[in-house]
Amino acid sequence: MTPNPTFENLAGRLAEHFGPRFSRGESTRLQHGRDESVHAPQLPDGVVQAECTADVALVMKLCAEHGVPVIPYGVGSSVEGHVLAPRGGISLDLSAMNQVLAIHAEDGDATVQAGVTRKQLNEALKGTGLFFPIDPGADATLGGMAATRASGTNAVRYGTMKDNVLATSTVLADGRILKTGGRARKSSAGYDLTRLLVGSEGTLGIMTELTVKLYPIPEAISAAVCTFPSIEAAVQTVIQTIQLGVPVARIELLDALSLKAINAFSKTALAEAPTLFFEFHGSPAGVEEQAQTVQAIADELGGTHFQWATRPEDRTRLWQARHDAYFACLQLKPGCRCFPTDVCVPISRLAECIAETQADIDQVSIPIALFGHVGDGNFHLVVLVDPANDKEMTEAAWISQRVVERAIAMEGTCTGEHGIGLGKRKYLVAEHGEVAVEVMRAVKAALDPGNLLNPGKVLP
Amino acid sequence: MTPNPTFENLAGRLAEHFGPRFSRGESTRLQHGRDESVHAPQLPDGVVQAECTADVALVMKLCAEHGVPVIPYGVGSSVEGHVLAPRGGISLDLSAMNQVLAIHAEDGDATVQAGVTRKQLNEALKGTGLFFPIDPGADATLGGMAATRASGTNAVRYGTMKDNVLATSTVLADGRILKTGGRARKSSAGYDLTRLLVGSEGTLGIMTELTVKLYPIPEAISAAVCTFPSIEAAVQTVIQTIQLGVPVARIELLDALSLKAINAFSKTALAEAPTLFFEFHGSPAGVEEQAQTVQAIADELGGTHFQWATRPEDRTRLWQARHDAYFACLQLKPGCRCFPTDVCVPISRLAECIAETQADIDQVSIPIALFGHVGDGNFHLVVLVDPANDKEMTEAAWISQRVVERAIAMEGTCTGEHGIGLGKRKYLVAEHGEVAVEVMRAVKAALDPGNLLNPGKVLP
Repeated sequence: MTPNPTFENLAGRLAEHFGPRFSRGESTRLQHGRDESVHAPQLPDGVVQAECTADVALVMKLCAEHGVPVIPYGVGSSVEGHVLAPRGGISLDLSAMNQVLAIHAEDGDATVQAGVTRKQLNEALKGTGLFFPIDPGADATLGGMAATRASGTNAVRYGTMKDNVLATSTVLADGRILKTGGRARKSSAGYDLTRLLVGSEGTLGIMTELTVKLYPIPEAISAAVCTFPSIEAAVQTVIQTIQLGVPVARIELLDALSLKAINAFSKTALAEAPTLFFEFHGSPAGVEEQAQTVQAIADELGGTHFQWATRPEDRTRLWQARHDAYFACLQLKPGCRCFPTDVCVPISRLAECIAETQADIDQVSIPIALFGHVGDGNFHLVVLVDPANDKEMTEAAWISQRVVERAIAMEGTCTGEHGIGLGKRKYLVAEHGEVAVEVMRAVKAALDPGNLLNPGKVLP
Repeated sequence: MTPNPTFENLAGRLAEHFGPRFSRGESTRLQHGRDESVHAPQLPDGVVQAECTADVALVMKLCAEHGVPVIPYGVGSSVEGHVLAPRGGISLDLSAMNQVLAIHAEDGDATVQAGVTRKQLNEALKGTGLFFPIDPGADATLGGMAATRASGTNAVRYGTMKDNVLATSTVLADGRILKTGGRARKSSAGYDLTRLLVGSEGTLGIMTELTVKLYPIPEAISAAVCTFPSIEAAVQTVIQTIQLGVPVARIELLDALSLKAINAFSKTALAEAPTLFFEFHGSPAGVEEQAQTVQAIADELGGTHFQWATRPEDRTRLWQARHDAYFACLQLKPGCRCFPTDVCVPISRLAECIAETQADIDQVSIPIALFGHVGDGNFHLVVLVDPANDKEMTEAAWISQRVVERAIAMEGTCTGEHGIGLGKRKYLVAEHGEVAVEVMRAVKAALDPGNLLNPGKVLP
């Protein structure tokens, strides 16, 4: 890299302020220039480890003075290239901002630094009778989860990050510190800046502290698993369950290939057929009633091997296959990478969307497992590729484009929970229209006129 | 009014396009220049009755060309002066946009024009097994409810408008038509423009169509009423109910004065003491279990006269007092107006906030009833005044300011559900800080650079 006097000046200032917490080393930059997806790494020019909101504000202020981009970084578990640095700049690592600042058990909320992970928060909540439900799979930071509007398995009951972030401290593009929201459960006081930031992927501000909702640990939990003769039958079971208003906490679908992968991975002998996994939260009588209602629905639709359990060890056993699914699928093609896709459609279109997608899958050579959080109409394809193999990458891109276009045509979205990042910018106009993207650009320009906050992400 | 050539030119264009649907008559202007509050009327210069999104876009385009403000109007049930015209301009009446455009029963959503009221939507849903739960009391339009981020009695279970608007069609300040959101239950695709508009009180755009969430009508509903020796004991019952995770659908508190007013109004002989009203939604066994859990909590806290019922006529009888409360309170002082207040605090502070407020109430001469949606920490004061009486208005303003400042000091909000309008602009900085208000101004300037959309509202 040719020395750039502006950047060298900034680097000097950062080194002076942050000492060893500022790094320009190749390995640190590589670690911060890639994520869990197939996107080729794009390295930042330097990395700062922040420890508090004031650190973030200082970095932002210095970078604004020098016109250098800032890319917030949590644990790098994103899958749409969110943390890559296509225009270089400073990767601002928030993982050391991992303090749980306050737990208000009476109010059911907690305030954390943005680098706290969801598992860490749940550890800190032990003994309070409360938990934080949002579970995107990875042990992501809450800041990263808020930035991508993450959700996961139990969003069908507890909502997404949009529903569960009450307040933020956020550093703006010029280093000012913004407070949004508050701890009241509802408010009609002014524009909803919290929800403008949630899902903005670090392009409007850097969230450094979050207040999130907590929930009472259910008095009772039951789990159930059921095998179906077809994906269609499984999805119809989901639709009827939701339409009856059963307050199910999780409904997960795995396709036959996923089950085959699990049997190979875990040496089990599960039926290699579409399978639904349920979890119910409530009173002991309530969870039993929910399981019975779902069993009755499943029975009518040809479901078999319905098993349900309430003891923790039995529940864990029933759900083990679901927990193993992602890693089991990766073993279908040793050494591969996952090309992730994630769409969400109105539930009335889910069976049709999955059936048409299965027909596409039958046309390609690469293994593709399908599973998802079907209670919300959200599903993923685990597309397994060798990134160096052009044919495989072309097939993966084709499958991904087809499923996204299909979801949008069915009044759905190009991403239910992964975010836009780099990978899905090209679908933003198709999904929302030109005017909406113009408005997003206007909001971006108003808050980040120099385009320094995670530039190149979200907006096409 | 001195003729203004610019306005006369606009008026000519509007008359040409809208014929009798454009009015400059005094009575029409007066009707559109006041709301349900004590704010003195401020009249628009003219009123247009819109029938479709294209009408709204045309009015907005013409007004933008002429630099004339536009104030959206639903049924005028706002209580913070939202529909007043402090800078004149065109009141854009959306009440004739009252078509239910689509009901997607399978997906649990409906798309309506913004002038559809909540009762009208629920009428249209008859036979589908679904309902729209948000109930702010007045039979407001869904557009108005979205604009003020309304909620009401059962927000504790079903959320507020923020949680229940999935998508909008919105006319921007220059007449462009923006589509936001979508029908998928979740999405991480770009900035959350829907929630930026919800609660923006017509200052960022005019919502003309909304897609809202619907819910299955519960299999069973039970209601309960219980009297308490003190507000403190009642509020502790609420706190413990919420903390136990009982999925209560409504918890309403009325104070002793409200009960006294109801006895006088309805010739009943209810205990004139703090009273909680509950409603539970679920399965028959579930609602019985919920009522029993709450009864056990209330018993421990000195609750008496606990009654519960499941048959519709019995539930209605139990809740009649709550339904009558507002009108009964108005009869405490015939001919009065209500000076409304509405705050919301974290539930751990609710008892303290109410107790300190009661002490203030004891110091003034005007009658003030207290009731609210206490499951969310939200309560209202029904402050009864003669707007022509300066002493009463001064007392009312003092009570209102005290309760708002107290709520903000307790990490609450100056308005849980009424909105900012004209009346609460002065508290926006105290609640959110200077930087947040600067960001709100930047967003407003980005979307409405001419300050034509409901000018003078929300931002101080």
